[in-house]
Amino acid sequence: MTLERVLERIDQDLPASVERLMELLRIQSISTDPAFKEHCDKAADWLVDDLKSIGFDAEKRVTPGHPMVVGHGGSGERHLLFYGHYDVQPVDPLDKWDHDPFAPFVEDTPNGKIIRARGASDDKGQLMTFIEACRAWKAEHGALPAKLTIFFEGEEESGSPSLVPFMEQNRDELTADIALICDTSMVSPGVPSIASQLRGMLKDEFTLIGPKLDLHSGHYGGPGLNPLREMSRIIASFYDEDTGAVAVDGFYEGVTDTPSQQLAAWESCGFDEKDYLDNAGYTMSHGEKDRSCLEQQWARPTLEINGIWGGYNGAGSKTVIPSEAHCKLTCRLVGDMDPDRLRERIRAHVEAQLKPDMKVIWDNDLEGSRAPVMDITRPEFSAAQKGLSAEWDREAVFTGMGGSIPIAGFFKSVLGMESMLVGFANDDDKIHSPNEKYDMKSFHKGIRSWARILAELA
Amino acid sequence: MTLERVLERIDQDLPASVERLMELLRIQSISTDPAFKEHCDKAADWLVDDLKSIGFDAEKRVTPGHPMVVGHGGSGERHLLFYGHYDVQPVDPLDKWDHDPFAPFVEDTPNGKIIRARGASDDKGQLMTFIEACRAWKAEHGALPAKLTIFFEGEEESGSPSLVPFMEQNRDELTADIALICDTSMVSPGVPSIASQLRGMLKDEFTLIGPKLDLHSGHYGGPGLNPLREMSRIIASFYDEDTGAVAVDGFYEGVTDTPSQQLAAWESCGFDEKDYLDNAGYTMSHGEKDRSCLEQQWARPTLEINGIWGGYNGAGSKTVIPSEAHCKLTCRLVGDMDPDRLRERIRAHVEAQLKPDMKVIWDNDLEGSRAPVMDITRPEFSAAQKGLSAEWDREAVFTGMGGSIPIAGFFKSVLGMESMLVGFANDDDKIHSPNEKYDMKSFHKGIRSWARILAELA
Repeated sequence: MTLERVLERIDQDLPASVERLMELLRIQSISTDPAFKEHCDKAADWLVDDLKSIGFDAEKRVTPGHPMVVGHGGSGERHLLFYGHYDVQPVDPLDKWDHDPFAPFVEDTPNGKIIRARGASDDKGQLMTFIEACRAWKAEHGALPAKLTIFFEGEEESGSPSLVPFMEQNRDELTADIALICDTSMVSPGVPSIASQLRGMLKDEFTLIGPKLDLHSGHYGGPGLNPLREMSRIIASFYDEDTGAVAVDGFYEGVTDTPSQQLAAWESCGFDEKDYLDNAGYTMSHGEKDRSCLEQQWARPTLEINGIWGGYNGAGSKTVIPSEAHCKLTCRLVGDMDPDRLRERIRAHVEAQLKPDMKVIWDNDLEGSRAPVMDITRPEFSAAQKGLSAEWDREAVFTGMGGSIPIAGFFKSVLGMESMLVGFANDDDKIHSPNEKYDMKSFHKGIRSWARILAELA
Repeated sequence: MTLERVLERIDQDLPASVERLMELLRIQSISTDPAFKEHCDKAADWLVDDLKSIGFDAEKRVTPGHPMVVGHGGSGERHLLFYGHYDVQPVDPLDKWDHDPFAPFVEDTPNGKIIRARGASDDKGQLMTFIEACRAWKAEHGALPAKLTIFFEGEEESGSPSLVPFMEQNRDELTADIALICDTSMVSPGVPSIASQLRGMLKDEFTLIGPKLDLHSGHYGGPGLNPLREMSRIIASFYDEDTGAVAVDGFYEGVTDTPSQQLAAWESCGFDEKDYLDNAGYTMSHGEKDRSCLEQQWARPTLEINGIWGGYNGAGSKTVIPSEAHCKLTCRLVGDMDPDRLRERIRAHVEAQLKPDMKVIWDNDLEGSRAPVMDITRPEFSAAQKGLSAEWDREAVFTGMGGSIPIAGFFKSVLGMESMLVGFANDDDKIHSPNEKYDMKSFHKGIRSWARILAELA
């Protein structure tokens, strides 16, 4: 059986696969800092060369920011696009790293071998699982397993400014039957996971204006309206402290309760609520009462304050009643929540709270997106479930995800293409933090998983 | 008559007096920001030189913070100390200034000439009224008008950390019959005012800590406790929105209602409540219901939020649940309110509001002071009332004051010395705010007023 041969070759080639990943990890492709521009370029070149070496017709493609890597190869009825990103997060605070973030090495730990470096998990290690699966397949079959388009970007960690224009300019070339995205975690170690519902996002920001200038609190303290106090009152009014729910009128429009069977399936995925809370320093859940952390994280909407500022924040004291107070907020959306309608409702809530002599100014440049729900009846999903279940000796699960993966939204909105998210990261990989790592098991079984999924799809 | 000659000289010398003030205003003596340490030093040097030029034996005196300026001169039975401060408030937000805050200039306005600069009113312009009166007196009489001690500090806007130790170490040198303080406003333009009761001050600052690190709002939004939300809730809980009063248990302990006769006298001082509100951009009072603005400003305590910050405040959006939120607050005290006891009560209120998994850290370096009440039966008060009434062609009034002049409290508690507060600022001077100014009329008639008061006292 040919799949077996591919899997054997993956096992044999693992040391070489790790060495290739390390080469890529040594490239300091920090996208958000212009000082690392050349390094991003170098990472793109490295990927182009590697893709060419296994038969892809690959190119580095210039953008106003960091380059894209696009490769085409293979043949077949089904056209799959694989997405990953070669850029990494900045490494500061550097003094919290135990080793050079760009000198990758394999470390033995009580939980097995790990590969330690910036980008090991997010996303260089993950994207290489797919490339290595293709390499092994090519070596055994002399051809790639399907009609494949590879699409790597170098700006995922810096807001992807070039992404949508590039998609729009290369619409035909990038549109496939489905996009495979390898940039997510497993719900718990060893539990293969396919994220099938994400949360949407609404961003908003407002400035409350009280007095027409900063006032002296000795002079106006008492009769004066203080926007810091008013903003606090308004933010407090967003929440129902008894239930833990959001108290904005109509906030839950479009939200439906998750069926209890679905909830039960999620809860059996091995998610450890205590660990999850521990990792943040919490002893309990502080959200909606009577809902598990998993349900809240995957299937309930939120309204979070991400930044507030106003008045004096330097050393010592300043007796000021400031003219302005500022608030940044984001909502996570689920189900059929409409970001435009939600924005109106939140703004109406704030405006209804304003006292005389106050006004509010909204930032109108912030976007919103609906919660994506994947169509898991598609054949790619059953193929993935089958392949993953075989590899990990455990039924693969369809999970929710608390975050928003904007790329999945763009594939849908710009190219009309569905996405399937399969990733092998673990929650303790410290992505975006010092001492990032990727488990050798994730890398090895990740490669094998893709080989199995591609075999199912081929 | 010699007073007439002094007044004439003041009139003739006004352009030179303005030029001297501008020299002082050009020095960026922001005391709260260590970056401006040299500038504070320079302001002290400038004052020493100027005092020496009119016959004072003046010195810059080193402290652990910014230097003091002490000068002695003149003779006579009555020993008067004059206090002012050469330091100024920070200038942020700088973009709200129409001109460089440290490039003073004279501007013609429909209400007469004004001197525009940071510190023009608070307190460089005011302290120079006294120096210029002494200069003119010296020029006409060949001697200073009384036994005078000049005492300028450079830390008034940053909590005066060196003040009390310096007073304690120089007790004999600084103890006079009375302290004259020129750092206050007139109750309304053209109404000469002697402040006879001030508000005290309590400063505090706290940091709320929620999760042990910044969290991703996609991952922890929902179950996670957000310190920005919690701080808003706690600040909102400080106030009773129905009555406009502070809702901290025991907050009003030590407060007595002002007698209705006193209230009536104040209300007849020419204070224009509408102007006062207009100047801030308010159409109404937002404080305690059923109390006039004047009563609230002069005789009622407050709890004001002066700064809040936490999370992300840069461009765009960051989906963070921050680990910390910060709040700076100050209270104004009246009557017999005890700052130490009040601090305990406020802290107890905040701590009672904390949910599990939150903690609060207090800044223990911020001071408090009781509300001072002056003894207006002393002869200096009647001399001041006489001199001011003559200069301004209107009976001078004894007023309350919304601000806190901690120095008056320290003169009393450390040196056993009474204070008399006479100032010429106006309510629209924008002290502590962008575009601070001092009216030329305040400066000119302020100098003349001191000449008259000194003549009465000499």
